[in-house]
Amino acid sequence: MFRSSQERQKERVLKRHAVLQAAVRMFNERGFHATSLDDVAASLGVTKPVIYHYLGNKDQVLFECVRLGLTQIREAAVAARAAEGTGLDRLKAFLRRYAEVNMDDFGRCVIRTGDETLSPESRREFRALKGEIDRDMREVIAEGVADGSIYAKDVRLTAFTLAGALNWPARWFDPEGPESRSEVAAAMVEILCEGLRRRDGAGNSV
Amino acid sequence: MFRSSQERQKERVLKRHAVLQAAVRMFNERGFHATSLDDVAASLGVTKPVIYHYLGNKDQVLFECVRLGLTQIREAAVAARAAEGTGLDRLKAFLRRYAEVNMDDFGRCVIRTGDETLSPESRREFRALKGEIDRDMREVIAEGVADGSIYAKDVRLTAFTLAGALNWPARWFDPEGPESRSEVAAAMVEILCEGLRRRDGAGNSV
Repeated sequence: MFRSSQERQKERVLKRHAVLQAAVRMFNERGFHATSLDDVAASLGVTKPVIYHYLGNKDQVLFECVRLGLTQIREAAVAARAAEGTGLDRLKAFLRRYAEVNMDDFGRCVIRTGDETLSPESRREFRALKGEIDRDMREVIAEGVADGSIYAKDVRLTAFTLAGALNWPARWFDPEGPESRSEVAAAMVEILCEGLRRRDGAGNSV
Repeated sequence: MFRSSQERQKERVLKRHAVLQAAVRMFNERGFHATSLDDVAASLGVTKPVIYHYLGNKDQVLFECVRLGLTQIREAAVAARAAEGTGLDRLKAFLRRYAEVNMDDFGRCVIRTGDETLSPESRREFRALKGEIDRDMREVIAEGVADGSIYAKDVRLTAFTLAGALNWPARWFDPEGPESRSEVAAAMVEILCEGLRRRDGAGNSV
């Protein structure tokens, strides 16, 4: 009859996530400004105060969506840095996951959210989180340069170039299309790491 | 005393461009939704009806801004396709100019404008113009594959990868920073075309 505190806690987490999932899809489809929390609430069959209860106002809901996306990427960075192999191997693993997250709901929301959309406090934290990921990427590249597996004249610009290329699928990837997220991610990472020079029969540049 | 029709026409073009220049900077700095045509008019010391006279409503002003940016990129594509050299040479020339435009006011506005921000008619034309540029890029890549200067397993995905990487500086490039647009563009194009494999003394991949 009465639910345990643990059950209530679990239900709270599930409901909160359902709200975020409904919100992020609307933000991605319609744009943040064209989405109201009333629409989000209606799509879940609840009222706006329920959303306030679980998450807060519209800026807070957006911030939670982008925080979730950035957390997924940060986890990928930590995993890649702890992995075996050369710097280039670790970078490729990180980049593939980075691209996959950017094609998923919360990652897409990170990419589609301009700094100026967030409130000043949320913006500060958004930038700080993105800065950590940028630092991770530069460190993996620098490790590859140090172990001789990566050539990079300018580590910072290399990181920006890779990240930019892998951010963009957030705008064009179609989950209903013929290729999966991980197929597109792997193919893009191959293009970026190997470049465009023609290869010999063994796949080496000539 | 009386200006000739030619002088009036020239003045009209100059005033129209001044409005677009003021508008694009505000859109880029504050975001489209946070910018009102009253702010744009005030920054030029005119009233909103002056802007309506030269350009129309806010959606029309935004569309003219993105049209200008896309036109600059289209011109670069046409110039690169008519140039001498291998497909890879022509692709590099196009990509450098593509990146430069994206770091400039109107190009930045193209990148920062999500489809959903525009009215349905403007959106259709915006997508059509972007589609032409995408086609140009694929054709230059395909020419390079045909003449043996470019290796690309998937021309479409290669074009998307290159374009994405070179769109992104619209978000981070700082015109007050130590590097010029053309320096950043050239360095990024080099990273993308050459890849990340370590090189021998002659700069070739090993």
